[in-house]
Amino acid sequence: MIEVTINPGPIKLTVPAGTLLLEVLKQAGVMIATSCGGKGSCGKCKVIVSSPKFIPDTLNASEKELLSEEEIKKGFHLACQCHLNQNSTITVPPFSLIREDNSKIKDKVKSCLVNDEFKPAVSVKKYFLKINPPSLQDQRSDWTRIKDELNKQSNENNQTWKIPPAILGSIPQLLKDNDFKITIVLYKDKVITVEAGDTRREMYGVAFDIGTTTIAGYLLDLVIFKEVAVDACTNPQFKYGAEVISRIDFARKEVKNRQKMQQELIETLNQMIFSLSAKAGIDFTRIYFAVLVGNTCMHHFLWSLSVENLALSPYIPVITDSIMDDSRDLPNFCLIPYAKVYSAPNVSAYIGGDVISDLIDIVIWQRKGITLLVDLGTNGEIVLSKDGKIWACSAAAGPAFEGARISSGMRASEGAIDRIRITPDKVDYRVIGQTKASGICGSGIVDLMASLLKLQIIKPDGRLVNQEECPLGISQNIIERIIRGKRGNKFLVVSAEESATGNPIFFTQQDIREVQLAKGAVTAGIRILLEQARIKPEEIEETFLAGAFGNVLDTTSALEIGLIPAIPSKKIYSIGNAAGEGAEKLLLSEEMRNIAEHLSQKINYMELSAHHDFQRIFAESLFFNPMV
Amino acid sequence: MIEVTINPGPIKLTVPAGTLLLEVLKQAGVMIATSCGGKGSCGKCKVIVSSPKFIPDTLNASEKELLSEEEIKKGFHLACQCHLNQNSTITVPPFSLIREDNSKIKDKVKSCLVNDEFKPAVSVKKYFLKINPPSLQDQRSDWTRIKDELNKQSNENNQTWKIPPAILGSIPQLLKDNDFKITIVLYKDKVITVEAGDTRREMYGVAFDIGTTTIAGYLLDLVIFKEVAVDACTNPQFKYGAEVISRIDFARKEVKNRQKMQQELIETLNQMIFSLSAKAGIDFTRIYFAVLVGNTCMHHFLWSLSVENLALSPYIPVITDSIMDDSRDLPNFCLIPYAKVYSAPNVSAYIGGDVISDLIDIVIWQRKGITLLVDLGTNGEIVLSKDGKIWACSAAAGPAFEGARISSGMRASEGAIDRIRITPDKVDYRVIGQTKASGICGSGIVDLMASLLKLQIIKPDGRLVNQEECPLGISQNIIERIIRGKRGNKFLVVSAEESATGNPIFFTQQDIREVQLAKGAVTAGIRILLEQARIKPEEIEETFLAGAFGNVLDTTSALEIGLIPAIPSKKIYSIGNAAGEGAEKLLLSEEMRNIAEHLSQKINYMELSAHHDFQRIFAESLFFNPMV
Ligand code: FES
Ligand code: FES
Repeated sequence: MIEVTINPGPIKLTVPAGTLLLEVLKQAGVMIATSCGGKGSCGKCKVIVSSPKFIPDTLNASEKELLSEEEIKKGFHLACQCHLNQNSTITVPPFSLIREDNSKIKDKVKSCLVNDEFKPAVSVKKYFLKINPPSLQDQRSDWTRIKDELNKQSNENNQTWKIPPAILGSIPQLLKDNDFKITIVLYKDKVITVEAGDTRREMYGVAFDIGTTTIAGYLLDLVIFKEVAVDACTNPQFKYGAEVISRIDFARKEVKNRQKMQQELIETLNQMIFSLSAKAGIDFTRIYFAVLVGNTCMHHFLWSLSVENLALSPYIPVITDSIMDDSRDLPNFCLIPYAKVYSAPNVSAYIGGDVISDLIDIVIWQRKGITLLVDLGTNGEIVLSKDGKIWACSAAAGPAFEGARISSGMRASEGAIDRIRITPDKVDYRVIGQTKASGICGSGIVDLMASLLKLQIIKPDGRLVNQEECPLGISQNIIERIIRGKRGNKFLVVSAEESATGNPIFFTQQDIREVQLAKGAVTAGIRILLEQARIKPEEIEETFLAGAFGNVLDTTSALEIGLIPAIPSKKIYSIGNAAGEGAEKLLLSEEMRNIAEHLSQKINYMELSAHHDFQRIFAESLFFNPMV
Repeated sequence: MIEVTINPGPIKLTVPAGTLLLEVLKQAGVMIATSCGGKGSCGKCKVIVSSPKFIPDTLNASEKELLSEEEIKKGFHLACQCHLNQNSTITVPPFSLIREDNSKIKDKVKSCLVNDEFKPAVSVKKYFLKINPPSLQDQRSDWTRIKDELNKQSNENNQTWKIPPAILGSIPQLLKDNDFKITIVLYKDKVITVEAGDTRREMYGVAFDIGTTTIAGYLLDLVIFKEVAVDACTNPQFKYGAEVISRIDFARKEVKNRQKMQQELIETLNQMIFSLSAKAGIDFTRIYFAVLVGNTCMHHFLWSLSVENLALSPYIPVITDSIMDDSRDLPNFCLIPYAKVYSAPNVSAYIGGDVISDLIDIVIWQRKGITLLVDLGTNGEIVLSKDGKIWACSAAAGPAFEGARISSGMRASEGAIDRIRITPDKVDYRVIGQTKASGICGSGIVDLMASLLKLQIIKPDGRLVNQEECPLGISQNIIERIIRGKRGNKFLVVSAEESATGNPIFFTQQDIREVQLAKGAVTAGIRILLEQARIKPEEIEETFLAGAFGNVLDTTSALEIGLIPAIPSKKIYSIGNAAGEGAEKLLLSEEMRNIAEHLSQKINYMELSAHHDFQRIFAESLFFNPMV
């Protein structure tokens, strides 16, 4: 096996020696142009290969023909002709990356809601400027010349355009080399960068929802307001613990850990930016704006702020305001130095920008009546609003709803069961990617729980019954799936033969306890919030269920396990990763960013740990009964 | 001899092995506290010594007594007790630096002019905040807590205070360690830094006039608006040539030269900041604002902008606007990262921020009638104003007026002759520092020129006569001073016995040619500007003569050599380094910075090289005749 590093990225992977480079790139998800289908005749698949012992004369006939002298000197190869025999670093030049036809991508910037009149208004702008060359009669400075043209084109006379001195440095050469034709990129009145020629068509933004368990990324075309790529990956901090508390402990141990955790997060964002860019076939240096939403702890990790006080009573964040900064202030972040980075505002130590982003997505400020929002991630965040007043609290749910800490749990990716229905006779399920099942993701777990409760195979107190306790009418097929294990019973969801891994997929008593703890925490939070607002569960007029379950949660299942108040199921909206959609809106609209700031200040945060009766309410909430 | 490096600085010097450390510090101009007069009993003179082969047991009895265990471990010594025997690095902690009694320092922020109603209004502010510690009932974030207190104290409710995330990082620890008492430093609504305890009394700014030959620095106390230290040193780029053109050539040769020249400038500014701080006994981390004025070329070098087009017709600067930036954007600049750096605006490639600064100093926008300003540095910048209209041009004078390129020329420092009067009988002169003479500075050179012209020892065409050509009435003492040299005659100004160096000080025919070229360039510039503005020389109502001659130029001498238009000498004001004084005003007042911006845009720049008749006018101007 040899190790291959692919740039931009770096994406690292291990492949058998002798693998065709084109294959390696495919495996890494890097799509490059191959017009001739890999026959070695089009010359489109040029990449640079550098190995410790690179031997330049290992080129085959096609390569010798299609590569120029200079390219050969630089180490270019045709990916479809080159087999890797040793550890190598591959550099994929932007011109070899595929550009998908953007028009094929489905319309995006849709809302999950009707009646949402969202108007994108991107603060990033591009102007293509044809500058008049100077003369002894016109000795204006380069920057004055650019400003004057900018004033003309933007119809904003005497705008106080600002340019960082570092960008000024490149301007004389850029003007000279490009016949005085340049494109200027602005965030409001501030120059982000200056580019050669006319690049108005290329303008991108990226939004991230940084969850404790999963990071989701969205690449948006800021010219046509379309999502052009999405991606998700595991938060690299997972290795320090599934919950924020264990990560805070790690971060507190040594000052350098804070920097380390920041760097790991930034590296992951970088990799996602490279892979999103590769998927969409764009040049990542054309991304000018990044929006980051996440819980307060992830937010603090990202900005390398002390998280110590987040974990200690009275739970004080360093900052709750939004942050608008330059990319260069996030060390080693891959966007160009003056690209803008926006971090959504937080409310408190345990209500972060991801919740604000949810509220942006459901247009909370326009809702009349009583609205409940529950975002199930590693923490369960609960928001209740009534006539413009908003309360919020956070419940330490643990990562069960994200598929973590569950024996056969997994992230909602290919091979995950995302829907299950168990009748007295059989088990029906759906697998993401229509392959064999490898595990169960959050929405599947809630379905499974609800089904087994309905069949009374799980009791309201969470106990998984023995075969002989099964109620009448349940078929042998189902009964036999209950298996006595060393640490309590378990339920066979998928047999070894049917599964992708060759191992059976079980749902164990321990798994049920994890779900129970998560459910109990969330239910208790909802109860306390209702009590605080003097609202009865049945008065709730609409409930939004958000969270990175992968696919959306089945609302009936959520009702059946008693996770949310029992109101008519048609008034419950399962909205999937609303924080991600909210982040996209924050990226596209300054108005939304202003509303976010306003929301973060007006929400009444309830500290559950400070509630006099929390223990009792939590204990009651552990039961899987409908919430009335 | 051993080499010693002193930090902060670094200041490097070579001293004999065995020198007392206190002596070394004195030589370096670093003043440290020595309450016991160096007897080794007060323990005030603590500094850290680190040598490659540092032996900790070389402490004497006093040191052992007065230094703590921990201090000894860190390498502390008493400067009055420690002899240096090897190459060492000395670190002077801020608490060992002397603090002068600021009240003794003369009132500054005076103007060189009457009727100047200058009102300082510093944009840097400090607030001492006592923050309420958080509780479960008050979970506001650290930053919200700080903002709320700031709003209270500043009476500016809901100001949108901004803080860089990098500063946020230090806040939780700072609050914890200082009993929630901190001082916040702001530039307008933006946080520059946050400090422990109450530091309101310490607030400083620094202004630099970066000349082609000399850099002058001024340290200002921003609480009481006083100058607390001044310093000057040679521009480190002098090694690339005395004139800007040769430096531009060097900078163009390789891209890395641009960075190199920037770094050299910044290192020099750093050293000046350290020495200014040491002189005033202040901590340089309490300097929050730096103002930089200089000609356009120095400005471009400082910001690492391409200077190529400054030297090529049509002479285009990259930027003429002022720059307001953070200290961290000047690589390795020693001020704290978010200290503000302001660079005065330029007018054109050869009229820079130093001229704008002159105009600020003479309050040009309030002057009625016709005003001429001539700033003599390596370039001669000329400004003419009439009824609010302003013209300017730049004459390539060369560094003669700064004492460079003159055989016995020197900068106006100790040992320089700054005044000379030669009568038919004798030579009278004044030396800076009242020591023996080492050379002649700019103002001395102009005096010398004027005296010798008056005695007809120099002819109006610049020829230094032979002994036998001397007019009647000149004493033998003077006549004998004319000596025939290999390359023309020379005049003995100071004999070998009288001079500090033991060598005679001559004024040579070649020196005269240098002065002649400089004078010719300036005179031609003035003539062309007058012609452009349709003003006759005698119509000028006031003339300001500025420049880094060290001491101020004698106006009568300037008139006698025909440098400036012949108007009554009482209407000619020799104002010394007006650019430095202007820079101080720019530091102290935002209004002045706004006026500077406005001036830079409204000045009509005349390109002398584009003038159809420049050659003829220059040739005529070479003669040392009064300008009428
Ligand atoms: S794919 Fe066509 S040459 Fe490689
Ligand atoms: S000066 Fe007093 S101990 Fe050194």
